[in-house]
Amino acid sequence: MKRLRVAMIGYGFMGAAHSQGWRTAPRVFDLPVEPEMAVLVGRNADAVAAAARKWGWAESATDWRDVIAREDIDVVDIVTPGDSHAEIAIAALEAGKHVLCEKPLANTVAEAEAMAEAAKRAAVRGIRAMVGFTYRRVPAVTLLRNLVAEGAVGTVNQVRASYRQDWLVDPKMPLAWRLQKEHAGSGALGDIGAHAIDLAQFVTGLALEKVSGTVDTIVKERPLLDSGSGLSGAAGAGYGTVTVDDIAIFTGRFETGALASFEASRFATGRKNALQIEVSGDKGALAFDLEDLNSVQFYDRTAPADRQGFRKVLVTEAGHPYLSGWWPAGHMLGYEHGFSHQVKDLVEGIADGIDPHPTFADGLQVQRVLEAVEHSSHNDSAWTRVAAGVTAAAL
Amino acid sequence: MKRLRVAMIGYGFMGAAHSQGWRTAPRVFDLPVEPEMAVLVGRNADAVAAAARKWGWAESATDWRDVIAREDIDVVDIVTPGDSHAEIAIAALEAGKHVLCEKPLANTVAEAEAMAEAAKRAAVRGIRAMVGFTYRRVPAVTLLRNLVAEGAVGTVNQVRASYRQDWLVDPKMPLAWRLQKEHAGSGALGDIGAHAIDLAQFVTGLALEKVSGTVDTIVKERPLLDSGSGLSGAAGAGYGTVTVDDIAIFTGRFETGALASFEASRFATGRKNALQIEVSGDKGALAFDLEDLNSVQFYDRTAPADRQGFRKVLVTEAGHPYLSGWWPAGHMLGYEHGFSHQVKDLVEGIADGIDPHPTFADGLQVQRVLEAVEHSSHNDSAWTRVAAGVTAAAL
Amino acid sequence: MKRLRVAMIGYGFMGAAHSQGWRTAPRVFDLPVEPEMAVLVGRNADAVAAAARKWGWAESATDWRDVIAREDIDVVDIVTPGDSHAEIAIAALEAGKHVLCEKPLANTVAEAEAMAEAAKRAAVRGIRAMVGFTYRRVPAVTLLRNLVAEGAVGTVNQVRASYRQDWLVDPKMPLAWRLQKEHAGSGALGDIGAHAIDLAQFVTGLALEKVSGTVDTIVKERPLLDSGSGLSGAAGAGYGTVTVDDIAIFTGRFETGALASFEASRFATGRKNALQIEVSGDKGALAFDLEDLNSVQFYDRTAPADRQGFRKVLVTEAGHPYLSGWWPAGHMLGYEHGFSHQVKDLVEGIADGIDPHPTFADGLQVQRVLEAVEHSSHNDSAWTRVAAGVTAAAL
Amino acid sequence: MKRLRVAMIGYGFMGAAHSQGWRTAPRVFDLPVEPEMAVLVGRNADAVAAAARKWGWAESATDWRDVIAREDIDVVDIVTPGDSHAEIAIAALEAGKHVLCEKPLANTVAEAEAMAEAAKRAAVRGIRAMVGFTYRRVPAVTLLRNLVAEGAVGTVNQVRASYRQDWLVDPKMPLAWRLQKEHAGSGALGDIGAHAIDLAQFVTGLALEKVSGTVDTIVKERPLLDSGSGLSGAAGAGYGTVTVDDIAIFTGRFETGALASFEASRFATGRKNALQIEVSGDKGALAFDLEDLNSVQFYDRTAPADRQGFRKVLVTEAGHPYLSGWWPAGHMLGYEHGFSHQVKDLVEGIADGIDPHPTFADGLQVQRVLEAVEHSSHNDSAWTRVAAGVTAAAL
Repeated sequence: MKRLRVAMIGYGFMGAAHSQGWRTAPRVFDLPVEPEMAVLVGRNADAVAAAARKWGWAESATDWRDVIAREDIDVVDIVTPGDSHAEIAIAALEAGKHVLCEKPLANTVAEAEAMAEAAKRAAVRGIRAMVGFTYRRVPAVTLLRNLVAEGAVGTVNQVRASYRQDWLVDPKMPLAWRLQKEHAGSGALGDIGAHAIDLAQFVTGLALEKVSGTVDTIVKERPLLDSGSGLSGAAGAGYGTVTVDDIAIFTGRFETGALASFEASRFATGRKNALQIEVSGDKGALAFDLEDLNSVQFYDRTAPADRQGFRKVLVTEAGHPYLSGWWPAGHMLGYEHGFSHQVKDLVEGIADGIDPHPTFADGLQVQRVLEAVEHSSHNDSAWTRVAAGVTAAAL
Repeated sequence: MKRLRVAMIGYGFMGAAHSQGWRTAPRVFDLPVEPEMAVLVGRNADAVAAAARKWGWAESATDWRDVIAREDIDVVDIVTPGDSHAEIAIAALEAGKHVLCEKPLANTVAEAEAMAEAAKRAAVRGIRAMVGFTYRRVPAVTLLRNLVAEGAVGTVNQVRASYRQDWLVDPKMPLAWRLQKEHAGSGALGDIGAHAIDLAQFVTGLALEKVSGTVDTIVKERPLLDSGSGLSGAAGAGYGTVTVDDIAIFTGRFETGALASFEASRFATGRKNALQIEVSGDKGALAFDLEDLNSVQFYDRTAPADRQGFRKVLVTEAGHPYLSGWWPAGHMLGYEHGFSHQVKDLVEGIADGIDPHPTFADGLQVQRVLEAVEHSSHNDSAWTRVAAGVTAAAL
Repeated sequence: MKRLRVAMIGYGFMGAAHSQGWRTAPRVFDLPVEPEMAVLVGRNADAVAAAARKWGWAESATDWRDVIAREDIDVVDIVTPGDSHAEIAIAALEAGKHVLCEKPLANTVAEAEAMAEAAKRAAVRGIRAMVGFTYRRVPAVTLLRNLVAEGAVGTVNQVRASYRQDWLVDPKMPLAWRLQKEHAGSGALGDIGAHAIDLAQFVTGLALEKVSGTVDTIVKERPLLDSGSGLSGAAGAGYGTVTVDDIAIFTGRFETGALASFEASRFATGRKNALQIEVSGDKGALAFDLEDLNSVQFYDRTAPADRQGFRKVLVTEAGHPYLSGWWPAGHMLGYEHGFSHQVKDLVEGIADGIDPHPTFADGLQVQRVLEAVEHSSHNDSAWTRVAAGVTAAAL
Repeated sequence: MKRLRVAMIGYGFMGAAHSQGWRTAPRVFDLPVEPEMAVLVGRNADAVAAAARKWGWAESATDWRDVIAREDIDVVDIVTPGDSHAEIAIAALEAGKHVLCEKPLANTVAEAEAMAEAAKRAAVRGIRAMVGFTYRRVPAVTLLRNLVAEGAVGTVNQVRASYRQDWLVDPKMPLAWRLQKEHAGSGALGDIGAHAIDLAQFVTGLALEKVSGTVDTIVKERPLLDSGSGLSGAAGAGYGTVTVDDIAIFTGRFETGALASFEASRFATGRKNALQIEVSGDKGALAFDLEDLNSVQFYDRTAPADRQGFRKVLVTEAGHPYLSGWWPAGHMLGYEHGFSHQVKDLVEGIADGIDPHPTFADGLQVQRVLEAVEHSSHNDSAWTRVAAGVTAAAL
């Protein structure tokens, strides 16, 4: 195997970000195999051709089934909306293609279960499947995980996680597809709450067992769009009903009994992309904020009493995760770098025959937590068990 | 009326803080009447006499009933543990004394209701009653309230409040009286959660209507104390059971329908006194952290789009609340200044015949929220109504 | 000796702050001798009597010479403008009174030298003299000094110190006495630059040997005051010339050869009281900002490479300097607390027969640095030696 | 003109960063002409061929003169050490190639003058020349400049600029070529101080007229390298003399009379890449720190007095400079993005026939300031005029 020929299906915001990852990773890291941006797939022939030209894909195509059937394709990267993930991913895995699937793994637990099963079967044949919780590969987040694993915080006593944005504060923001359940599947909970859940489980290495929570919609009616479906569409006449949540507040209990508080909101005025976590243990604490993504806050309870404090570790040293490929110490990375790191780990996993995390099983576990939160919310916030099944292997 | 003669009952940590307030307020502010530190009351004659000398009280005494009966006492300041508040406060009000009662108003809603009723009756006779949620009088907190009232955040969409400390992280910390329900009444919820609740209601001017939450005890067994009951006592042989909570996570719904998330914890490693609040509205947002108590964070959504951001307002300007009495701009205040401001407002309220907030009714409302949280926690986190009754007048 | 009877001369802003210190210290700390606020001295009989009543001084008087001659006075606290310090302090020391003199020690080096000589002679007779660089006793600053002394930063390679305010940015701010050399002696350099110099020398334990700098006046003409001399006076007709500096930028070289950069400015828009220092050594670094005075930033180069970062130490633990007398961990102090700590250390020094720092010799050293900066500025910024003489003993 | 064929000369750290810019810009922005990564030039044939493969250059070559002579090359990008800039850039301009030259423009003012002259002659023929002060194109820095130009700070009263790193704190760090004057030309002053100077002039739009400063070497002897010349070489036997500065502290005076303080240091323990600036004006202030490069601090003195404060503007909104090409609001950029923005502006300048800033004249102005600082330092820090000549057109 000399090259990995990649087909990417979908070409929205995530398409741009994944393209940047495929294009950049081999220029920055020494990969065992070089990925090749072979085909970009989308339904609108002209638009997808234009995107392929812009982003550097060799070809474009309109039928994903045809592309999956091609022998010269090794990897399928899925960045379509969630409702098509299961069908494409399962077909690709069965066709013997390695699959990278953007999160959420699927819009329903049933689909996610089928995907996880398909991934399990494919693994036997040496086929890899990975879900795109890219924030795991922000170097600071990887460092968080490593520090917890090294015992820097000791036993985890509690976790505080949230993901807050503010793009829905304006009540005149129109009723785009993302605010309609039939298209988006879920609102703040599934879109950004999923990241907070994955982060909490990934960083602590602990699975959530039960949840109790409330999901709500603050602005319930919004202006209808004249036409188009983008967020940028102009508001038309009349109002329609928002059918997804825009805020979710929930509490989780890990398998160890420790509690975690969660919040996902699109109404947190002034917070643009504030994915935050704080892990409190008996030896120390760690905190992170995606709006300041090159650093980690670390509190060491084993330091002399008069010298304890949260220290801001700039995660830009050569010894920090993924940093060897980039710039000298003190030179900041950005949001998109996680996509290059994702490509690196996927390519290495394929070359080494090892499943890179997060697996489809990990993605399924997040879906189950989301489902349990919704169930709890509809059930007067009663504590609800996260359904077990496929083990969350990589946790 | 030329002077207000004060008797203070109790002489622990709060006794020191209240003494500092009584001693300092008349030296800093121009009060309509001068308070006089007349009698300090405690059960141990020698100890209370020593405390009186140290803190500057003219006399000491051992029987609070005798002191309340004295004609030369105008104000009774209660800083005893919560289980004695109701008896002392009601007796003092009935004896025609103005009362300042440290929070929590009482250990039970029933007691708090009786106190609020007593305060209502006393008010008819011109007697004032005030509960000591001192943090309302941190200048930054008063400014928060004023800014919300002036419309700086517009309609409140959500609130995020927490009070986190870490003094129980060490599992060898012994089983002091504060960790025993029969003495302390409550744990993190009642001690510090109460402040977060009062802050959220005070700042927004909105009352909580329902709550759903979980109260838990992370370390359930702790070393027994050899003797004594202080936190500083040495650990003895054997272990005993912690009977109060050390973490509480709950969600509230305001009368307007807006959600608020709450957390109170004594296990938040590295957080020493982190009473934090963030109020998100459709015109802006405000945030505050007691560990940085001279400032407020303000986000103005009405500013030009490319110039929006959280601004750190140093609340030390002459025009800021209470600042006229203190130092020039930029000179920081501390924790204890709230106690001087409390004295100022109580003395002015007495002189003007107006009830200073927070009233006993406000204190009762907080007790009701606390009770509802505990009820919800025992009831699988089901949403629980905050019992109404006496109106929370000053909210 | 049972009590220390104090006479304070002067009753402006510093009078209020010193009064707070004298009043509070014995209520918070266990002092070996109790200070008594005996006499407040000022030229205007009515005004000084009113201030005495407000601040809690037993008597007032109008002639400082009479007061110094009284046998019942043990300590003289001087808070008058700098031009009268030398005369009063020397007279008091010769009369056998312990002296606390507000900074700057004097308006000229010659006066400061005479004062240091007088203090030296007085010390032989057991009389103490102390100059009021109160910021040394902000607990965080004392901790800085202790950490440097314990080797936490190793060898000091460089220092960055500044004191920035912004109260002169408005060009309509009138020509108050503080902006006239004949009254104020100096501008930003002497008023706030002096603090930055003392801080740099105190924290590092190193004396400045030479300086090169520039002193400038940004707004050179300001509206004349109608009458009165306070900053709050209304602007009248016409403009007058500002005769003191409002910005000073200079570089110093310590006796070890290490460089330090300094800036003092009253034009740093948005900076209210930003006395900042950063000490960089071969083992670590320390930083401090008076606008966040309850914390120290500490960087430990000996920590594992991937865990290094500036940690924010909240200087509010029981083991931190001066904290034992105050509140539980995490409860913030303010600006004025340094004045109580100053009283504590002076009273203990008197009881123990030991000179508390900063001595008059330390104050003289700061005056010499200031004089050298002005000399350098008038001499095209040429490097200028800080005149040696009395050794800066307490450095 | 359909494509711009680029030859890049040099392939060190800056080669990697420029390659990322050339590769990414056309994938993110809609450029009028597409740049093509045609030839990478270096002296070691194997090494340069490997780098070309890794970074995506179509060819490699070893003789820059041959490459400049090629008709199919439109742009020459120079990332060699400073001592070869003048020769290559002048030759390329004379050969009719557009030139992008990494900073510093040259190692001496004489060379820089010749280059600026060559650029002036080339401009007549429609040939563009640009110097790579990339930090100008960090979106936050561009916003700083725009805000100053829009009057957000009013008249600039003072500036505080510094660039601090800490990679020389370890005295065992060996004597690499960067620490030897014959190779590196200059130390902290020329390498990072140059950025602080350019930033101060660019953001304010003001040129420095005079400087007074001190340049020093803290660690004067370092271990000799066994062989090789990289920073990563192992220390050998014996010690050699460091012949460049590692700290520079200086004061500048702008043409308006306003003062600016500067510091460049490689000994600022804990500071990794702290290029900081604060601009103080009569209407507001702006601050920036490269270690937090997605934000700007803005203080608006025209806001209501009780609401003033430094606000942290996240420079990640669609309307912010360069952001339209990148991600949704709140998604952070990194260090390298400036190189894509540089490519964008150079390509657009070439297409539009307009010189993109910073011009060679701007680069020359920075060289003159550096030279003046060194002159002042050798002259007892006397104030030294920045030699005028070619006007700093783009300032």
